[in-house]
Amino acid sequence: MTTYVYSFECGDGKNKMLLGGKGANLAEMTQIGLNVPPGFTITTEACLAYLEHDVLPNGVMDEVRAAMRELEQKTGKGFGSATNPLLVSVRSGSAMSMPGMMDTILNLGLNPATLEGLIHQTDNPRFGYDAWRRFVQLYGKIALGVPDELFDEAMNALKAKVGAAQDVDLTAPQLKDLAQTYIGIVEQHTGHPFPTDPMQQLEMAIAAVFRSWMGKRAVDYRRQFKITPEMANGTAVNVCTMVFGNMGNDSATGVGFTRNPATGENVIFGEYLTNAQGEDVVAGIRTPKPIAEMQQEMPRLHAELMELRNKLEAHYKEVQDFEFTIEKGRLYALQTRNGKMNARAMVVTSVEMASEGVITREQALLRVNPALLEQLMVPTLAPGANAVALATGLPASPGAASGRVVFDADTAEARGKLGEKIILVREETKPEDIHGFFAAQGILTARGGKTSHAAVVARGMGKPCVSGCAAIQIDVHARKARVGDAEFVEGDVITIDGSTGKVYAGRIPTVEAEFFDELQTLLEWADEAATLKVRANADTPNDAARARRFGAVGIGLCRTERMFNDPGRLPVVQEMILADTPEERQDALDRLLPFQREDFKGIFRAMDGLPVTVRLLDPPIHEFLPTASQLEFEIDHLRNLKRAVRGMNELPETLRMLDPELHHAYVDSLDHLNANLVQYEQQHRFDALIARREAMLRKVHALHEVNPMLGHRGVRLGLTNPEIYTMQIRALFEAAAGSLREGVTVNAEIMVPQVCTKEELVRVKAIFDTELDRVAALLGERPHVRFGTMIEVVRACVRAGSLARVAEFFSFGTNDLTQATFSFSREDAENKFLPFYQESKILRENPFEVLDVKGVGRLMQMAVQWGREARPDLKVGICGEQGGQPDSVRFCHAIGLNYVSCSAPRVPIARLAAAQAKLREKEYSTSVFD
Amino acid sequence: MTTYVYSFECGDGKNKMLLGGKGANLAEMTQIGLNVPPGFTITTEACLAYLEHDVLPNGVMDEVRAAMRELEQKTGKGFGSATNPLLVSVRSGSAMSMPGMMDTILNLGLNPATLEGLIHQTDNPRFGYDAWRRFVQLYGKIALGVPDELFDEAMNALKAKVGAAQDVDLTAPQLKDLAQTYIGIVEQHTGHPFPTDPMQQLEMAIAAVFRSWMGKRAVDYRRQFKITPEMANGTAVNVCTMVFGNMGNDSATGVGFTRNPATGENVIFGEYLTNAQGEDVVAGIRTPKPIAEMQQEMPRLHAELMELRNKLEAHYKEVQDFEFTIEKGRLYALQTRNGKMNARAMVVTSVEMASEGVITREQALLRVNPALLEQLMVPTLAPGANAVALATGLPASPGAASGRVVFDADTAEARGKLGEKIILVREETKPEDIHGFFAAQGILTARGGKTSHAAVVARGMGKPCVSGCAAIQIDVHARKARVGDAEFVEGDVITIDGSTGKVYAGRIPTVEAEFFDELQTLLEWADEAATLKVRANADTPNDAARARRFGAVGIGLCRTERMFNDPGRLPVVQEMILADTPEERQDALDRLLPFQREDFKGIFRAMDGLPVTVRLLDPPIHEFLPTASQLEFEIDHLRNLKRAVRGMNELPETLRMLDPELHHAYVDSLDHLNANLVQYEQQHRFDALIARREAMLRKVHALHEVNPMLGHRGVRLGLTNPEIYTMQIRALFEAAAGSLREGVTVNAEIMVPQVCTKEELVRVKAIFDTELDRVAALLGERPHVRFGTMIEVVRACVRAGSLARVAEFFSFGTNDLTQATFSFSREDAENKFLPFYQESKILRENPFEVLDVKGVGRLMQMAVQWGREARPDLKVGICGEQGGQPDSVRFCHAIGLNYVSCSAPRVPIARLAAAQAKLREKEYSTSVFD
Repeated sequence: MTTYVYSFECGDGKNKMLLGGKGANLAEMTQIGLNVPPGFTITTEACLAYLEHDVLPNGVMDEVRAAMRELEQKTGKGFGSATNPLLVSVRSGSAMSMPGMMDTILNLGLNPATLEGLIHQTDNPRFGYDAWRRFVQLYGKIALGVPDELFDEAMNALKAKVGAAQDVDLTAPQLKDLAQTYIGIVEQHTGHPFPTDPMQQLEMAIAAVFRSWMGKRAVDYRRQFKITPEMANGTAVNVCTMVFGNMGNDSATGVGFTRNPATGENVIFGEYLTNAQGEDVVAGIRTPKPIAEMQQEMPRLHAELMELRNKLEAHYKEVQDFEFTIEKGRLYALQTRNGKMNARAMVVTSVEMASEGVITREQALLRVNPALLEQLMVPTLAPGANAVALATGLPASPGAASGRVVFDADTAEARGKLGEKIILVREETKPEDIHGFFAAQGILTARGGKTSHAAVVARGMGKPCVSGCAAIQIDVHARKARVGDAEFVEGDVITIDGSTGKVYAGRIPTVEAEFFDELQTLLEWADEAATLKVRANADTPNDAARARRFGAVGIGLCRTERMFNDPGRLPVVQEMILADTPEERQDALDRLLPFQREDFKGIFRAMDGLPVTVRLLDPPIHEFLPTASQLEFEIDHLRNLKRAVRGMNELPETLRMLDPELHHAYVDSLDHLNANLVQYEQQHRFDALIARREAMLRKVHALHEVNPMLGHRGVRLGLTNPEIYTMQIRALFEAAAGSLREGVTVNAEIMVPQVCTKEELVRVKAIFDTELDRVAALLGERPHVRFGTMIEVVRACVRAGSLARVAEFFSFGTNDLTQATFSFSREDAENKFLPFYQESKILRENPFEVLDVKGVGRLMQMAVQWGREARPDLKVGICGEQGGQPDSVRFCHAIGLNYVSCSAPRVPIARLAAAQAKLREKEYSTSVFD
Repeated sequence: MTTYVYSFECGDGKNKMLLGGKGANLAEMTQIGLNVPPGFTITTEACLAYLEHDVLPNGVMDEVRAAMRELEQKTGKGFGSATNPLLVSVRSGSAMSMPGMMDTILNLGLNPATLEGLIHQTDNPRFGYDAWRRFVQLYGKIALGVPDELFDEAMNALKAKVGAAQDVDLTAPQLKDLAQTYIGIVEQHTGHPFPTDPMQQLEMAIAAVFRSWMGKRAVDYRRQFKITPEMANGTAVNVCTMVFGNMGNDSATGVGFTRNPATGENVIFGEYLTNAQGEDVVAGIRTPKPIAEMQQEMPRLHAELMELRNKLEAHYKEVQDFEFTIEKGRLYALQTRNGKMNARAMVVTSVEMASEGVITREQALLRVNPALLEQLMVPTLAPGANAVALATGLPASPGAASGRVVFDADTAEARGKLGEKIILVREETKPEDIHGFFAAQGILTARGGKTSHAAVVARGMGKPCVSGCAAIQIDVHARKARVGDAEFVEGDVITIDGSTGKVYAGRIPTVEAEFFDELQTLLEWADEAATLKVRANADTPNDAARARRFGAVGIGLCRTERMFNDPGRLPVVQEMILADTPEERQDALDRLLPFQREDFKGIFRAMDGLPVTVRLLDPPIHEFLPTASQLEFEIDHLRNLKRAVRGMNELPETLRMLDPELHHAYVDSLDHLNANLVQYEQQHRFDALIARREAMLRKVHALHEVNPMLGHRGVRLGLTNPEIYTMQIRALFEAAAGSLREGVTVNAEIMVPQVCTKEELVRVKAIFDTELDRVAALLGERPHVRFGTMIEVVRACVRAGSLARVAEFFSFGTNDLTQATFSFSREDAENKFLPFYQESKILRENPFEVLDVKGVGRLMQMAVQWGREARPDLKVGICGEQGGQPDSVRFCHAIGLNYVSCSAPRVPIARLAAAQAKLREKEYSTSVFD
């Protein structure tokens, strides 16, 4: 015979499918010794049987009557007693939380007789009549199907009649009359007397709550949130003794957190009101008191509350957010759940609870969601600032920043030198804008996805960036931008939040990042627990130093092309590209070499023996030239300017574009301008400027590619133009040898991008060997530098066994690998079909943010396996964007990678994720590929 | 004790490493009973020992002397005999053929005494002295190291003195004197008398030939052709009795093919000269006679020659190309090798030799290189036409064609209608040029690789195409093109050869393709032997009919977008793209549907029950719009034209661009033009034309993609714009149902392009199911149509197991799959780094022509395996370009594909390759992936 009713003492606290979430929770609290008001749960099985046959199953009411008798014994009250009445709440509760979707009835058991007893007990007629009229309304509506409007009309009529503004203004006699009116409404609508038999009330209430599972609201909700019968099937009914915090000054009600959810401090945090019930707090008539005051006001109950707090944490091993009521000096726990906390509080409580022994270090590490740490690494908008965003773009690089709008990199640099805070606002950015990035607090672009140039460079620098903000229309030449109805001229202040993609007018206060002690401690524990190492992507000595501050144990990706983009070097790079003869080209390369060498030395110094993996030139060389349209525009303007100067005309607008500093200096004295223009022409020789741009334009056309992502780049460029890689490799060896002689420990690795076949590696290795001999002969030092390959081309995964015969290490470039595996161009996909794919759940995640385990991951796993079969000590890492994403870190650990490398601010996230990956590795299944 | 010398009777004919190729061949011929002049081979081991110690190894000369005695016995001649002298040739011969790289000495054994004997025997003093002076020179040079110039100077001095123009003009006495002069040169240079002892001559000659293995020429040759010691190590020396065809009228010399190498006819083919030696044929003094004449002239020897021919074919089971000499009525076989034949002869001889029982059918199938068949499927340049090419581009679609140069598709169409033969010459082509393809005999482009639009469309139509011919500069507006120094105006005739990429001025005669009986027979045998089926790629009913003529047993790829490119439909497609509202878009689609339906019906009718696999729309939609620069150009010109018409100006040039037919009609009557321009404007309303182009331009900009290859196309487009696939699927079902009602058997399959995840297939399958129900309800027929997926995205390979749960079949699109696997954009790679990669052997083959087995192939093999694990009866094919390439066909067979699909003219190649793949499947190793 099926059991349909379980008392809170007997229910299985883990069986939410049977008892619902609320019933299970009440049972669990009861069974760990918390003083929960006695009660019982009627199972979801009863609900399903009721819904199938439209009648409560046999025996249910017999069990309910027995359970009610138990309640009477435990409480000493009587169900229907006029002197000491037992009142109960009847609440729904399914396995999945569906807040507000199903029905609840309070104060069941009231009738004219028990009402008198309640009034007598509380000595509060107003409370009694209020409870009574509420019960009549709720019961009438839910159990008897009386339309709610009828009650509302009566209430409004009464308030109008007595001149009451709010419900709380009504007096006890008025409420008594209202209840009588309500009973009339019910009796008129149903044609029957209002039921006064408590057990009859209860039976009808139980059936009504069961019916609410199939109510329209509930059905719609389940459809909307895709709640299937496997997740929740039917609702349970919880019948629970009513307790009242308003039974005198030895009664109270309150809510509390076991620790401060804002700071994590180990102090109970909450509020209470004496002689009050929950709704009094909501109504706001009285101001609740902090729980600390309870120590004076009710010392015994405060001590009991502390004990309750300790029991909760000891059992749940989590900060709890709980509700309590004190009825006549007796403390009841009504509800508890895990407390919601901000990132800082999560970290602080983790470290402290572990130190206190409430939880283990492992539990402390597992408790914090690594992604939460991001908000601790970057400035954020101050919590109080409820500004309304003007527009939303893509959250391309996290953090918030304010500054003056500037529309080009030169102006940004010029104004930055004057100490101004700048937000660089561009249609899109190019490598030649790099000095603008250095000068700016943040970057905002109208076009481009999360791997656009702006996004990637900003993340590398740790500066906030909002990209692809299509709502912004920029008119560079008029020096203004429009966002919806708002217009900004250069110099206006805006704020961007790269964590949300939002753009605000004016300056919004921000909160700086903090790297506090508990975070340090937690991350040290993480490093001890983890086996997967965490490195950072860093391109300069400054980046390297910053990476170490974030706890990186090496540099997994040093992009040598970033060194080319420095404004002092880009012209030399362009000379190299435009060279007509091998000699001219070599001359340009010879001038670039010292730059690269000194950069490498700086990085070696900063990393002091930690591994530094240098990637040879990767992008197609046309990326170092301006776009065709930019060049056409400049040539056009130079021609105009030339004409203007010849004719002594004024064209200050053009000049501003070409040389903002000069324009700035002379803008107020146009009289001087013409004279200076003559000088300017003499200095700059327009024809030469035009000729140079025309040469560039020809080269840009010659270098044009239909699909640059799959074009002439990486090792393909390195082999067709071997002098470039030769220069880079030589610079690295010279830097290593020089550093060694200066006493710096060097742990360097060179890797080749875009490799698809072993033979490519063999050719580059030949250059490597030649240059190593050369440098060793020249400098008398033979640095030990490892030789490896990027794995970012699909074929490199398939041929991993062959590549590993030449490469000493692999580094997965999962950005490119993901593009090639899906045949998605990231720049195109994120602006076109990818949002639709995510919204319509064709893809669950954006594979450029979260590693696609089933596709890309499978290729990686094969590459690791085949690579290690050929070279068992093969070192393998990942330097794609996903390297700092917790789920991806977990996968990388599972397939045996040695390290992940990510941007510096994500290093702490990856460190924690690496620890969690190790601690949870047994849970990880190979079925991830299925 | 090592044996260094093997007589031809004893040598192992298979051991080329020991005996060299020539020695092994002579031994084999001797041992199968051919009358080879007696001789012996000194092994490569002797050579290596000699080179190591600089002296002939012990015993070699003893063995040589014994072998010489044997020769004397066999020939009845004496080595050094003055009456019946034995002369020998001393030839090099290593395991690998190295023509001309090492030394050979003829007529060894001559000295003043034996010379007299020779003259007496031949009764030909001139022959004797000529042989003598040649021997002195060769021996002096090779064995004694005398510089060749010294002999040449003496020869030239003599010729000047006696007034002889050529060597053959010298008389016997003059040659006698010359030989004497040569002996003086040798003796002066060496300081020793010229050796007259034959055995001494022989020993020195053997050593000299051995030394030539390490001569500069030979060493360079081996380096150049990468001949390693594993392939050939040292040279052997062959000492062979000299036989002379000039010993009287019972002597002769000749060459023969066992069958006609030009036609394959089973008739001996060759020439001979009586009383002559080989060099007489070369000198051209006498005209050789066809072998047929020998039957009259020397009937016994003719019969012996027939016997020799039969023995050769019976043994080698191949048509042989052999040399013979008849010395005094005795027939000697001097050399034989497999005959080089053209494609037709290969096919004819295969079928006939099999019919005659010389070889088996299997041998007949294995004997023909499938790639050879290509020249039988397309027109070729007539063999005699030795024209010099003006320029060379990429051989993008095979076949040769001549026609008038035309620079745009409209003009091509207009002139084509007048019956002119046209070669469409464009910078590059776009889908909107399709009517120009229909009108043209061939296509020539200045830009684009072998998968450029021009190449793919031309191959699909079976028309010749030369693409990426960078040497051509086209000025469309001036209607002329420049190739080097040559200039062509529209209407000039050129010839292109799409099999070689060459472009010629004027009309070069071509030979039409032929599909003769023996080819039909061979291909029928192939179909019986093969298990892999061969289908064709075909987009129209005409294509389908053509594919059947080539023997395709189905259509593996029917590209629905080709149906959109028809000039009658493209404007409707553009309306669909430009539609502002869903209704407008649906309206355009509703007008496209009947076109697609009728196309499908035509194809079903043509294929009559054979499978037809239809691919849903694949390319990005911007491919159906003109390029931005084209639109900008047109808008600019339309504005000019508008101004011109307003001002009654003349702008015939512009008009020609816009409307060639109108221009054509009025070009001779410019008086009419202005009046007509007014009418033209009234008809065309320039403002509307401009507005339409401006709308297109905005759309082109909105649709712009950074990497279109990885962009918004295929199923991504089909899911974001489901109305397009809905229309296509509905059209197919309606066509199938309609065909069934008309009694046509329909065997249709629908496949989805660019799929990367199962969910995409699920969504398209939902459209498929809905439309099937709809059409079944409407038309009362429920056609059985299979649902499958292209596998052309890497992720689709990795997720094959998952996709196979929805897809009933797979079709590998190895063009795109190769691009994604290598991260090579084919269009960019073939113009940039890929030629370098092939030249420098980083890649052995162009992976877009020959399937990359180790990378792409491995992914395919995994996809087949995983797909069949999920669905054991999964049908798998390939429809990429490589589907017609023999090595790729072999691989497809090996991994268990059901069919390959290729362009129609490659179907016969694939059929033969499929048969060979089956016959050789046991040789195929899984180590292909290593």
